[in-house]
Amino acid sequence: MSEVKFEQISPADFFYRNRDIAGFTNPSRALYMSIRELVENSLDACEIGKILPIIKIKLTTIEEKGEVEIYRLYVEDNGIGVNAEYIPRAFATVLYGSKYVNKQSRGTFGLGGTMALLYGQITTNQPATVISSKGKDINEYKLMIDIVENKPRILDHKVYRNNNWRGTIIEFSLEGDYQTAKRKIIDYLRETSIANPHATISFIDPKGRFYFYERVVNIAPKPPKEALPHPLGIDAETMIRLLSETKARSLFNFLTANFQKVGAKTAKEILKIAGLPLTANTKKLKHEDVTKLIEAIKKYNNFRAPDAFTLSPIGVDSLRAGIEKEFQPDFIEVIQRPPSAYSGFPFIIEVALAYGGKIPISDMYQLYRFANKIPLLYDERADVSWKVVFEKINWNNYKVPKEVPLAIFIHLCSTRIPYKTVGKEAIADRPEIEREITIAVREAARALKNYLSRIERREAKKKRLDIFAKYLPKIAQFSAKLSNRKKVPNIEPLLKSIGLEEIEIKEES
Amino acid sequence: MSEVKFEQISPADFFYRNRDIAGFTNPSRALYMSIRELVENSLDACEIGKILPIIKIKLTTIEEKGEVEIYRLYVEDNGIGVNAEYIPRAFATVLYGSKYVNKQSRGTFGLGGTMALLYGQITTNQPATVISSKGKDINEYKLMIDIVENKPRILDHKVYRNNNWRGTIIEFSLEGDYQTAKRKIIDYLRETSIANPHATISFIDPKGRFYFYERVVNIAPKPPKEALPHPLGIDAETMIRLLSETKARSLFNFLTANFQKVGAKTAKEILKIAGLPLTANTKKLKHEDVTKLIEAIKKYNNFRAPDAFTLSPIGVDSLRAGIEKEFQPDFIEVIQRPPSAYSGFPFIIEVALAYGGKIPISDMYQLYRFANKIPLLYDERADVSWKVVFEKINWNNYKVPKEVPLAIFIHLCSTRIPYKTVGKEAIADRPEIEREITIAVREAARALKNYLSRIERREAKKKRLDIFAKYLPKIAQFSAKLSNRKKVPNIEPLLKSIGLEEIEIKEES
Repeated sequence: MSEVKFEQISPADFFYRNRDIAGFTNPSRALYMSIRELVENSLDACEIGKILPIIKIKLTTIEEKGEVEIYRLYVEDNGIGVNAEYIPRAFATVLYGSKYVNKQSRGTFGLGGTMALLYGQITTNQPATVISSKGKDINEYKLMIDIVENKPRILDHKVYRNNNWRGTIIEFSLEGDYQTAKRKIIDYLRETSIANPHATISFIDPKGRFYFYERVVNIAPKPPKEALPHPLGIDAETMIRLLSETKARSLFNFLTANFQKVGAKTAKEILKIAGLPLTANTKKLKHEDVTKLIEAIKKYNNFRAPDAFTLSPIGVDSLRAGIEKEFQPDFIEVIQRPPSAYSGFPFIIEVALAYGGKIPISDMYQLYRFANKIPLLYDERADVSWKVVFEKINWNNYKVPKEVPLAIFIHLCSTRIPYKTVGKEAIADRPEIEREITIAVREAARALKNYLSRIERREAKKKRLDIFAKYLPKIAQFSAKLSNRKKVPNIEPLLKSIGLEEIEIKEES
Repeated sequence: MSEVKFEQISPADFFYRNRDIAGFTNPSRALYMSIRELVENSLDACEIGKILPIIKIKLTTIEEKGEVEIYRLYVEDNGIGVNAEYIPRAFATVLYGSKYVNKQSRGTFGLGGTMALLYGQITTNQPATVISSKGKDINEYKLMIDIVENKPRILDHKVYRNNNWRGTIIEFSLEGDYQTAKRKIIDYLRETSIANPHATISFIDPKGRFYFYERVVNIAPKPPKEALPHPLGIDAETMIRLLSETKARSLFNFLTANFQKVGAKTAKEILKIAGLPLTANTKKLKHEDVTKLIEAIKKYNNFRAPDAFTLSPIGVDSLRAGIEKEFQPDFIEVIQRPPSAYSGFPFIIEVALAYGGKIPISDMYQLYRFANKIPLLYDERADVSWKVVFEKINWNNYKVPKEVPLAIFIHLCSTRIPYKTVGKEAIADRPEIEREITIAVREAARALKNYLSRIERREAKKKRLDIFAKYLPKIAQFSAKLSNRKKVPNIEPLLKSIGLEEIEIKEES
């Protein structure tokens, strides 16, 4: 009979073999992803410390060879820095990270930064340099990734005394195609500055062009907090882990201490449904008891919604400021929905509709998607927002014509964004999320409808007035002639009475 | 300053936390994915042994609870079986598998089967049963997955003496939503039988309905073979691994022994570009030497295309048979393109256009996508085939109207399918693949155009003949009256001469 060879591979090896699924598909996209992953780490490192981010990016050509070139990528931030002992693993071990907690962050998979360095390593065979300081010593590492073992290889480590600098610098070589990636990279930085108007981001590209996105808001957003898990997000695995870690002896104490929205009353009801005593010993539960407990939680259908203090939305004013800076639209409406939840994970939807100004006109409206304050640029059609905007909502109902300068901004923030891919580009159409987006877009669309019909009325008036203004003088002259009067009647008061004051409709601020 | 907690997680834990990216998004999709992953493992297990597959699937309701139910899923195949010692890890360790080799297989990530069991475990807290035999003893395991450690927990292991059975049975409980998933599951089985017309697949659903897809081809396809890597697919990591494993002492011997399409002449040219001696010792290369070697391979631009014997296409006759069985179309054209390659990975495109018969009419043509003989049902719009069929090709050029019973089948087989997601649903638009699909669809579309215009001509003739047939007798009668003849002239020969024989245009077989 045929034989099959089995083998086990490390997670680093898995993502090395399947880098497509992490977005490192080709030299163009890989360059975009590398910049993106490092910028997002930098923004997170600032947000945790309530720091106004200053992020400096520089991309330099090292070697030209046809379509694909070798670049040196440099990203510097003023975030909280990384402890010396964690640096090698944080940047050279896959699935080693700080993002595995129940709060909102841009990174999700504990993967991105390391993937960028891994991609650089396999395309250039060169080590990466990581420099970081938390305000005291500065640590500089030269690192490579041992892909088979999924662990760092430290080639060099230096410690410098500090002159007050705090932050992180990453520098490494990688194969890329800036020519093709350029537009996406610039779009990405521009949209990042819309969703993060408190950040200052600069970028020097390989041709020496300088792109500068300055902050327009001077307050750092409140950092999101970690929360206890909500019972609706709990499956057998999490329950077993929590039981093994808890110090509570009785099931009753365990339930009230380890979950949000579970007080004494709820805990008692759950245990009643499960048929387990309040005093059952957490360390002596049988396998079936755990199963009963999980099923009881699923049956108990009365939990309050999860806490939203774990979330950090952009905010109505900041989102408005970010959009105004970039597009100077004639009209803008920003909607922030109250917190909602799916499968025990809280989320908030923010939507903005902007019209006119520098918004381009094409055969479709401009859709800008954001998740936890990062722009999503690829796989638009696979995203729930695309579905709502282009398949679900009938824009005729809001009297919005097809080719107009309309931009739609949709931001989802959550402790867990349901991405369809590791490349973090498209959001799955969870019904709860789809519903909230639809409500918010409709609400903003109604405001737009009002604005457009005011514009229309004003234009109709203006047209009418223009006609009167054109013909009334002639009629006045003609009437004067007909009645043999020398003096043509004054028509100014008449013109004023039929229109002028109505034209000056108050504009949106 | 703020502190951040770092931690490392196992790959099982990673996919447990991020099961969305493996396609286990919700109870409906998870049920579909579980069936799919097990069926694909079964088909692979038959193909390796050149066995005509008989796959039996049964889904039973265990417990109803509102929208979501608990099911028992049973999948049996007559494949080559799994060695007893490998069973626990093959089904209860993530990233442990037999698919990490350079040949075509349905599975890619060494992930799917284990993910199905993992999903079952976290939603029901129950172990899975795996029974397998290679023809001698039968081994039965009860398994759970230790997710934190990424290793199997064996709850029970029995060995039976055999009565000639060979194959594998997997049985486990899982949360699901068959009501919603049903259509996708049936579509999946039906399309799988189109792309695998040599397989017999049966399915008993929770209502006891029996679905049966019988084989229409009695020859098992040639199993794909493993091949040496093609130099164009080589990066630094692979090169370093090959160098550390090789027994060749000189670089020249190493190159000729470890790569396809590298003979003595090519090896010499590569080493000349790299500036390295033919005799350089493989075990004493400096880091820069390895870099030089990789760069030389990239610069050498003259490799022959990779071997295609690693591929196992469906075949023109089998694809035709599969489609005819399911749709009985009036017209069918199957195109198989010659092997091509992207980044060192060989691939073959097969395209079929079928028209009429049982093909449904809707506002779009029916697109059926296949990769390595498995149907892809989700995320259609993110797929390269969608792009070619609905955005690139202008069907007006082929005189194909919009709402017609047209089905387009596109099959990509490759040693490495560039999936966009771990859920294996959408294929990335690599330019080489897009180009081959476009050529094949255009070629088939030209045949369809000819067929449609023959049909049109025939209908025009028929219409003309109908008119003649209607009026000629009256004209004959009228002329007879007019000329006072009693006998009306025989018009049959006339009718025949103007049309009948032309209507009988030879049909496509």
